[in-house]
Amino acid sequence: MSEQALTYLNEHRDRLLEKLREFLSIPSVSTDSSHKDDINKAADFLVTYLQNIGFEEAMKQDTAGHPLVYAEYNGAGKDAPTVLFYGHYDVQPVDPINLWDSDPFQPEVRDGRLYARGSSDDKGQVFMHLAVFEAYMKTEGKLPVNVKVCIEGEEEIGSENLYEILNNKKDQFAADFAVISDSGMVAKNQPTILYGLKGFTGVEIEVTGPDHDLHSGIYGGAIRNPIMALGHILTSMKNEEEVVTVDGFYDGVEPLGDEERKLIEEVQGENYTEATGAPATASEKGYTAKEHTQGRPTLEVNGVFGGYQGEGTKTIIPSTATAKITCRLVPGQDPVRIQQLLEDHVKQVAPSGVTVDVKKEKLSAKAYKVEPTNPLITKAADSLTEAFGKETVYVRMGGSIPVVEWIEAIYKMPVVLLGFGTPEDRLHSPNESFPLDSFDKGMETLVHYWQKVND
Amino acid sequence: MSEQALTYLNEHRDRLLEKLREFLSIPSVSTDSSHKDDINKAADFLVTYLQNIGFEEAMKQDTAGHPLVYAEYNGAGKDAPTVLFYGHYDVQPVDPINLWDSDPFQPEVRDGRLYARGSSDDKGQVFMHLAVFEAYMKTEGKLPVNVKVCIEGEEEIGSENLYEILNNKKDQFAADFAVISDSGMVAKNQPTILYGLKGFTGVEIEVTGPDHDLHSGIYGGAIRNPIMALGHILTSMKNEEEVVTVDGFYDGVEPLGDEERKLIEEVQGENYTEATGAPATASEKGYTAKEHTQGRPTLEVNGVFGGYQGEGTKTIIPSTATAKITCRLVPGQDPVRIQQLLEDHVKQVAPSGVTVDVKKEKLSAKAYKVEPTNPLITKAADSLTEAFGKETVYVRMGGSIPVVEWIEAIYKMPVVLLGFGTPEDRLHSPNESFPLDSFDKGMETLVHYWQKVND
Repeated sequence: MSEQALTYLNEHRDRLLEKLREFLSIPSVSTDSSHKDDINKAADFLVTYLQNIGFEEAMKQDTAGHPLVYAEYNGAGKDAPTVLFYGHYDVQPVDPINLWDSDPFQPEVRDGRLYARGSSDDKGQVFMHLAVFEAYMKTEGKLPVNVKVCIEGEEEIGSENLYEILNNKKDQFAADFAVISDSGMVAKNQPTILYGLKGFTGVEIEVTGPDHDLHSGIYGGAIRNPIMALGHILTSMKNEEEVVTVDGFYDGVEPLGDEERKLIEEVQGENYTEATGAPATASEKGYTAKEHTQGRPTLEVNGVFGGYQGEGTKTIIPSTATAKITCRLVPGQDPVRIQQLLEDHVKQVAPSGVTVDVKKEKLSAKAYKVEPTNPLITKAADSLTEAFGKETVYVRMGGSIPVVEWIEAIYKMPVVLLGFGTPEDRLHSPNESFPLDSFDKGMETLVHYWQKVND
Repeated sequence: MSEQALTYLNEHRDRLLEKLREFLSIPSVSTDSSHKDDINKAADFLVTYLQNIGFEEAMKQDTAGHPLVYAEYNGAGKDAPTVLFYGHYDVQPVDPINLWDSDPFQPEVRDGRLYARGSSDDKGQVFMHLAVFEAYMKTEGKLPVNVKVCIEGEEEIGSENLYEILNNKKDQFAADFAVISDSGMVAKNQPTILYGLKGFTGVEIEVTGPDHDLHSGIYGGAIRNPIMALGHILTSMKNEEEVVTVDGFYDGVEPLGDEERKLIEEVQGENYTEATGAPATASEKGYTAKEHTQGRPTLEVNGVFGGYQGEGTKTIIPSTATAKITCRLVPGQDPVRIQQLLEDHVKQVAPSGVTVDVKKEKLSAKAYKVEPTNPLITKAADSLTEAFGKETVYVRMGGSIPVVEWIEAIYKMPVVLLGFGTPEDRLHSPNESFPLDSFDKGMETLVHYWQKVND
């Protein structure tokens, strides 16, 4: 029965790809308020698309922030399961723009990859779902499952308003299980089931010394330099063995058992130095880089700034220095508690002569893990294997998708992570791209999957 | 005889102040190449002014960078001494511009102070010299001393080309002594002789990890974070007791003897926490803030940057992190050796997983000290005391004026530092200003001084 849908996708492939390029060309950067119109444009694109393929009531649902795209399909009948499909249409900023080889919002195919901001994270993967819905609708006149579509515009800024809505409108989003395609495979064309994700939390540390920038000759030696003070604070949070030295940070963390270590070892990971260009790997003492990224918590400084950044020299002692920090958490760690530990630590180690302000990221999430033996998971694995012609592997990953944890916590339903990205996609970086192989085989996977979950 | 010049200055005070405002309104920011035209405009202003008051051959002298304003006056006769007057017409950048209460290039008088970029450093002080030359010329028809005027446009970017010229055209700049007004007094209306200045050197440290920004979820735990690596490097250079921990940094530094400590203690310094807004002072273990700023070397981070600096969160591991560092040196320290020590140190302590590039500032300078008993110095002190009606104090200061060291090294002539700035001037910061008291009494000082040095 799904043959027809597959044929449809094959025959309409060029047009669908063109449509995806149209979607990707909308610069829906959520972190930057100057892109507010583009955010709306991207949401409108989705609503129109959904309406055209038969989700008649598709609409933009207002939130306190960017609109949520919502649609329902109930044509599969009462006996068919209902799936909540989640994705996001917002994208990361593009800076540093000068490092892009082509315009991030003029999608370009090169060497079998589609280059554009959002091509992998997450517009490309969202679009694949819509195309598969279209294929079923146009060939079968119906979908094998009932669907609730929920595509938000604030994933890259913490999904703040989605959380409110999920919490307050439980009926609207209730379903039998959820499917999300906002992740990746361990290697190109290596079908992968993600059975665990890390949690997430963050703080911003601002160190203030003098109330204005000072001449370093006149005041050097009399007051504390805020950049140096920040250096001391950061250094006190993680040592050179990549061990987080914030008191209590590892409390409650499940140890990484031998079996899980073996599982991690068995899956072919990427070559980290090759993929990143870093001269060597660096991971927590006692763990390999693969073990650390998959199964151990991390603390990373995402940005730092203070004082003079221009050409040449400006001999000042700056007034302030700021660091943005995020942590990726594993099961057993509570993000709110971790934020508090970070704040307590910073306050405690801050040297004299400066004041320190710790701003806590509003939203955070616990880590997520699902049983790999759940039939919804095994059926996904089978669909992947069928489409990609290769055995599916099971992994945990270092990324965080807060919505996964929320759906699990609020609705107690399983979440299936069917991600088609690859390690070379350069998510959040210049030259983001998505392999056309993933585009094609991913859609084939979805065709199989909707069929299997209704068997 | 100098009475007439004083009367002239008094009678023409409003016009002279207006002329200074015209000079200050030219945004001659040397560090920013977009201000190239303004640099030329400021130089032209000086050339025209000098020509109008009788320095007929005043001219812009080409350099590899910004032009030097040069003029000679030989009318005092063969028996009169020749003074090399040095100043600079370039100014610091104005960022952060939003912290200025008035436009930095629309000079405004408020509460007895003239607010503008360059009002104190150094256009205001340069202009006072020109006004005093004018007063003598217009009343006496001549100056008491022969003068070589040398006003450069690259002081704020290291005086790179001046050094070449001073070295290559020794005849042109030869004189009996030099006078520079590019410094300050220990307090407003407290006449001060600066008998020592610090030397200066700097490095920029760039830490590179991955060759592009990475997703912190996917790669966190696998590679070294360049910001954290930079934090470890900075922290290893100065401890929380404000002691520089770079091997060999203090080698050869003259100890601060009891007598000099007493001299420093006796001079009323500024209240550092009040002047800076910092919550507490912080100085080298074993030294007071006053002792450290005046008599001990410093290492300051002037700027730091890496990764995401925008609103909200961007969950990346950045590719690079950079810190700009400058040191202020005391007699006994060689700036080139210090740069090498810094580079060696950074290379040695850099953690694995990153590469480190240390860029050495091209120009640096040794510290400077002059005998306080030199008659050129005591005459300056007497002139100050006369004009300000208060005993002159003798201090060393933490600032650096490379040209002072060069003049001493190349020409073996004494340099008299007749500075009229005050601690509240906010040099290099938003809301730079210069007290009108200093403007008036400073000019009076100069009238006395030119008379005294020819007695």
